[in-house]
Amino acid sequence: MATDRLNARTEALLRRLVRRDAASALRKLLARTRPSDIAAAMEHLTWAEQRRLYRLIDEDDYAAEVLAHLSGDSSREITREMTEEQVVALIDRMEPDDATDLVSALPEELRARVLQELGAEEDVRELLAWPRDTAGGLMTPQVFCMPDTATCGQAIAALQANDEHLETVYYVYVVDNVRALIGVTSLRSLLTSPPRTPLVSIMTRDVIRVSPAEDQEEVARFVARYDLLAIPVVDEHSRILGVVTVDDVVDVIREEAAEDMLRMAGVVEDERQASVVRQSWTRAGWLLATIGGGILAAEIIGLYEETLTRVAVLAGFIPVIMGMGGNVGIQSATLAVRGLATGSVQIGGAFGFVWREARVGVVLGLLYALLLGTYGVLRYPGQPLIGVSVATSIGLAIALAAVIGACIPIGLSRGGVDPAIATGPFVTTLVDVLGIIVYFNVARLLLTL
Amino acid sequence: MATDRLNARTEALLRRLVRRDAASALRKLLARTRPSDIAAAMEHLTWAEQRRLYRLIDEDDYAAEVLAHLSGDSSREITREMTEEQVVALIDRMEPDDATDLVSALPEELRARVLQELGAEEDVRELLAWPRDTAGGLMTPQVFCMPDTATCGQAIAALQANDEHLETVYYVYVVDNVRALIGVTSLRSLLTSPPRTPLVSIMTRDVIRVSPAEDQEEVARFVARYDLLAIPVVDEHSRILGVVTVDDVVDVIREEAAEDMLRMAGVVEDERQASVVRQSWTRAGWLLATIGGGILAAEIIGLYEETLTRVAVLAGFIPVIMGMGGNVGIQSATLAVRGLATGSVQIGGAFGFVWREARVGVVLGLLYALLLGTYGVLRYPGQPLIGVSVATSIGLAIALAAVIGACIPIGLSRGGVDPAIATGPFVTTLVDVLGIIVYFNVARLLLTL
Repeated sequence: MATDRLNARTEALLRRLVRRDAASALRKLLARTRPSDIAAAMEHLTWAEQRRLYRLIDEDDYAAEVLAHLSGDSSREITREMTEEQVVALIDRMEPDDATDLVSALPEELRARVLQELGAEEDVRELLAWPRDTAGGLMTPQVFCMPDTATCGQAIAALQANDEHLETVYYVYVVDNVRALIGVTSLRSLLTSPPRTPLVSIMTRDVIRVSPAEDQEEVARFVARYDLLAIPVVDEHSRILGVVTVDDVVDVIREEAAEDMLRMAGVVEDERQASVVRQSWTRAGWLLATIGGGILAAEIIGLYEETLTRVAVLAGFIPVIMGMGGNVGIQSATLAVRGLATGSVQIGGAFGFVWREARVGVVLGLLYALLLGTYGVLRYPGQPLIGVSVATSIGLAIALAAVIGACIPIGLSRGGVDPAIATGPFVTTLVDVLGIIVYFNVARLLLTL
Repeated sequence: MATDRLNARTEALLRRLVRRDAASALRKLLARTRPSDIAAAMEHLTWAEQRRLYRLIDEDDYAAEVLAHLSGDSSREITREMTEEQVVALIDRMEPDDATDLVSALPEELRARVLQELGAEEDVRELLAWPRDTAGGLMTPQVFCMPDTATCGQAIAALQANDEHLETVYYVYVVDNVRALIGVTSLRSLLTSPPRTPLVSIMTRDVIRVSPAEDQEEVARFVARYDLLAIPVVDEHSRILGVVTVDDVVDVIREEAAEDMLRMAGVVEDERQASVVRQSWTRAGWLLATIGGGILAAEIIGLYEETLTRVAVLAGFIPVIMGMGGNVGIQSATLAVRGLATGSVQIGGAFGFVWREARVGVVLGLLYALLLGTYGVLRYPGQPLIGVSVATSIGLAIALAAVIGACIPIGLSRGGVDPAIATGPFVTTLVDVLGIIVYFNVARLLLTL
């Protein structure tokens, strides 16, 4: 299919037109492009360009839909110069969950004014009470519920009467007289049952549900594991508060998986031109640990200055011992971070994982000790003990690195710190410092310096 | 909700019971646990334990559903000792897309016998023709299509008559007399339109579709961007071949995002006890590049042996210069790998990205040159040129690393290599070697050694 390249071309065209400020050509392009494609293309523009483009959208429904598909950062920048009336007009055209995302992305002062203006809009106010990364923050309160006394025919009639809510009807939830969830059935079951069938006789009673405080990763795990299109959110009395739909879960999964990867490297994903300073700032903080570790390493190496002056070739092996230790450590840490995210490594029961990493570390350590040792002996045939020192050190460093790499994310998790954020600098610094200490002590011992 | 902990407890219980070989307790547990939960728990067991547990499942439908939720590796191990008749009996109870996944996971010889046995089952044979990571490999051929002459009432009647196919009905596709896709409508629209309404008057003509050869990541991107529940797969004449449903897309997104992260570190995700050797083997290959680079670095440092003998403190700064270069390089490379995966970095138009990384590299280089230079001058006040050498070198190394880290994944992509796999070793090796060359040459120049 050419759809991908076509999109890329539309994006390039859009960018060119925005930069040339070609208003009438842009209006034409906007008219024949889907709102979600416009939103995706806008994410590559600068804030000023985004605002300029957005002002060209005439139709309110279209404008609301574009805004609903934009990231929080873009929404904030685009609404920055709007009045509260303009924002409220857009909110009125949005689904409650998208409206809530928009309100929470607004610049603070504007948000206060918008909330005052909204007044009666209870949905948005209630949804704002939940943190963004919970089931409550993801849910929409528009749920199609039927009383447990209803029949299939009545449910179909209610669906037909009520097309405002139809946007999010994937399932029909059956509730008792206090709105407590007691069962679920599908639109397809409604269609294939005789109209007089009571809902309770076709519903599934074992409904997978979450509380509003449930973490969004956990919600995503449920939806993925049970192949759901939507998952109901209930309070402590089983009363239904809303529903999280699969399209929002897809976004969560995309974000979360990418986030862990970016956090491991200490970077932020943000492709706009304005962000060199922000990107540098985020990365500088993370690298500070590396430079701290590096200075510590320099101090430690300084302690062995005399050793180095006598056997200068020892310095040559510092990079490989540190590099191998660092890489093995990051490998184990990556597995630990992933395992903690997917649940395959449990904070309280990680012994099996650490033990397996330890064995992998020993295997890799032996393998590379042999390899680097052989090189060392062949390279400095007059001083075979140099090769032996190097082999012993790299073997120990690799085995240590595997254990350290496996343990640090688990320890951070236990301490309530996101393991993806802090793991990288911790692991490399610790592994580097330990690697050097092992190396010089082994060398001094074997070479009796 | 306690569902998460409850699952973890069920898993632990399951493991204990399997290890104690407590058949009757296991049968009871199986009877009250969902097949997808059993499958998730089984992934933590050894192959032998998985087989032992699987044999205890009496009901065929349940057994088929557990198998459909298992990973390819587990399916292969479980079916290894089955006869072709047993496998075919399970396949008969599966959706065609799950059946296809199972067949392609079978041990080779068994697969041939199963395919012979299947004979008439055209669905599975046709689906097997597509690579697993394409739209064709993900799709199910069970699509609910209606001719363009039908009315809403006829469509509902057809749905009611045809409940075998109902499993995957999220949309009603409208086709012309050669089965070419011309429109789509939802079950909800069917319900809310008068029965005599022609389908063509309520359908959307602009249907987002993919070809069977489309890469699964691209399919996932479409489903995410347009909030779809299913996406039709069509041949070159627009004839509908099947449909990819959102539950399979959720699995793709989970896999792909994790895969990139694991590939960057050169590890495989696999938590079974048997895998120490496999894990070590995969990682050893990836680390080979690191050790190659390390030996090269050692050789280069060897060239400057005389310099080192005279100013031994220079050796102390090798780790920090290499470490910072390596980390900045990996940061830029991570952003490039993510950008290539999400489409925000285009292979042919990456100049903007590289230029931004270059500027970030210069900012970070200046910052850390200042920091490390200050340390160097304060630490060795008698030889201020040591501090100046170190500052110059780390600044250059960081800026170079940012550009190299940004370019290598793009170059690998252009050469048809998965950037996530090869980026790590390439970037660290190149950055290390260049960093050392810069450092010693700057030092020799400034210290006039």
